Amino acid sequence: MNEFKTLLSSKVSAINSDLEMAFEQNLDTPEVIIEAMKYSLFAGGKRLRPILMMETCRALEGDVELIKPLAMGIEMIHTYSLIHDDLPAMDNDDLRRGKATNHKVYGDAMAILAGDGLLNYAAETMLAGAHNLSGDTLVNYLNAMKSIMGAAGIRGMIGGQVADMLSENKIIDLDEMNYIHLHKTAALLEACVQSGCIIAGAEPATQGRLISYSHRIGLAFQIVDDILDIEGDEVDLGKPIGSDEKNHKSTFVSLYGLEASKIRVTELETEAIELLKPIGPRTAFLSQLATYICRRRK
Amino acid sequence: MNEFKTLLSSKVSAINSDLEMAFEQNLDTPEVIIEAMKYSLFAGGKRLRPILMMETCRALEGDVELIKPLAMGIEMIHTYSLIHDDLPAMDNDDLRRGKATNHKVYGDAMAILAGDGLLNYAAETMLAGAHNLSGDTLVNYLNAMKSIMGAAGIRGMIGGQVADMLSENKIIDLDEMNYIHLHKTAALLEACVQSGCIIAGAEPATQGRLISYSHRIGLAFQIVDDILDIEGDEVDLGKPIGSDEKNHKSTFVSLYGLEASKIRVTELETEAIELLKPIGPRTAFLSQLATYICRRRK
Repeated sequence: MNEFKTLLSSKVSAINSDLEMAFEQNLDTPEVIIEAMKYSLFAGGKRLRPILMMETCRALEGDVELIKPLAMGIEMIHTYSLIHDDLPAMDNDDLRRGKATNHKVYGDAMAILAGDGLLNYAAETMLAGAHNLSGDTLVNYLNAMKSIMGAAGIRGMIGGQVADMLSENKIIDLDEMNYIHLHKTAALLEACVQSGCIIAGAEPATQGRLISYSHRIGLAFQIVDDILDIEGDEVDLGKPIGSDEKNHKSTFVSLYGLEASKIRVTELETEAIELLKPIGPRTAFLSQLATYICRRRK
Repeated sequence: MNEFKTLLSSKVSAINSDLEMAFEQNLDTPEVIIEAMKYSLFAGGKRLRPILMMETCRALEGDVELIKPLAMGIEMIHTYSLIHDDLPAMDNDDLRRGKATNHKVYGDAMAILAGDGLLNYAAETMLAGAHNLSGDTLVNYLNAMKSIMGAAGIRGMIGGQVADMLSENKIIDLDEMNYIHLHKTAALLEACVQSGCIIAGAEPATQGRLISYSHRIGLAFQIVDDILDIEGDEVDLGKPIGSDEKNHKSTFVSLYGLEASKIRVTELETEAIELLKPIGPRTAFLSQLATYICRRRK
């Protein structure tokens, strides 16, 4: 696991440099909006989505350089969604990853614009990656971009966000919770592996396995979040625990209890790893990523 | 002029039908977000941007069917920017085009998500239009989409928005006002004519003339807005007048006075029309559009 963590942190560093580079061109815009966008983009994110996308592509021997702008784009999309989520009108959170949230630093108006700016810049970054491509490579690239934008929009993440908002202060059942989870979180993770598969030209069977894998680790990630909100360490997490209970939020844990939730996470880890096996030894990193997600303490 | 108005309103109707169609597919998302998005998208917008894009393309004998998804996309982008602009954290407006603003009807959280949803759906709609294209047609289409997303982002509209925000309650000079105008409004209008030129494969000289034309009508539109904010009819406008003065906003009119502003509008109308002449008689509609914009009373 230590070797994996070293490898993981080198991949995180590489993604951070690439994201920095995306802002190095002359952007001819008021400095403060760039500052606000970068504040949240470099606030210590785990880079799970770009890693998942690039490692899926690598495992399938696809062109990792080609997929990079898409991986940058999805991280920008993820970040914009957090900035807007944290706004007073939405979840009204003051802290994320141990740092003041965007609107606490730059004000609500700038936080709205920084979020808008990141979503727009994600599309620009992804489109720029299509430059000089042609033929099937271009078609595949655009299909991957479509899958990402579809997963980010009202049929995916935004739809999940809306459902989550509508469910506040309500006891919801497992079906509704699944809808929220599948759209709010899983859709983007699924788009990561799907993009990797499209760029690498994976067989449908392989694609199906990887999509199931992404659902397992996405659900596990969510349940671990809920568990950590009860028994995590506030310093490690960089945010106060107990917020789900405070907000009367229905979670997997509130429905099934801590013990059953932990058993479910272990099952999900095993299932995720089993799903990868037939694809071959190049999936080793993705397999360790599943373990890492299921056993994380922050 | 009456003939032009009839033609214009038939074009507006056609765009409205196309926008309706964009939401007719099964979107598998909570109904309320679609409702909130459509509320603002169908709140009586003038459709200036899609008309400008499609009519530029038509004047240059380009493929108007091909450009349609881009025209739909830019109207969605324009609408999302209005929804976010009107939010309490931004301009805090209760009325737009005589109707309650999005957040007044759906609440701040849903208005933020409806805006996000429209920007994302704009990108999805434009990407969907690339389906089945290939070769140079695809490359041109993607270049037009790039120009639109660039104009909408931090280097364009969002940058102008930020500069506008930073200038609030400050006396600004003409340079700053030009920066704001060129980015907040003109960038998107320029992208309209540029997209039309790219899709139609226009000569650089023609493209230059049309871009200058778009700057003239964009600036005229803005100055007429400022004039109407002083001497317009509240019923016609669907919003209270005097808001610029109330918000201590520097405008062209506050800098130069009403009379000089009206003279400037007349000059801009003439310049816009002169710029079109060498392109030929197919620009007649664009020429009348300039007159319409400069002489409008609402």
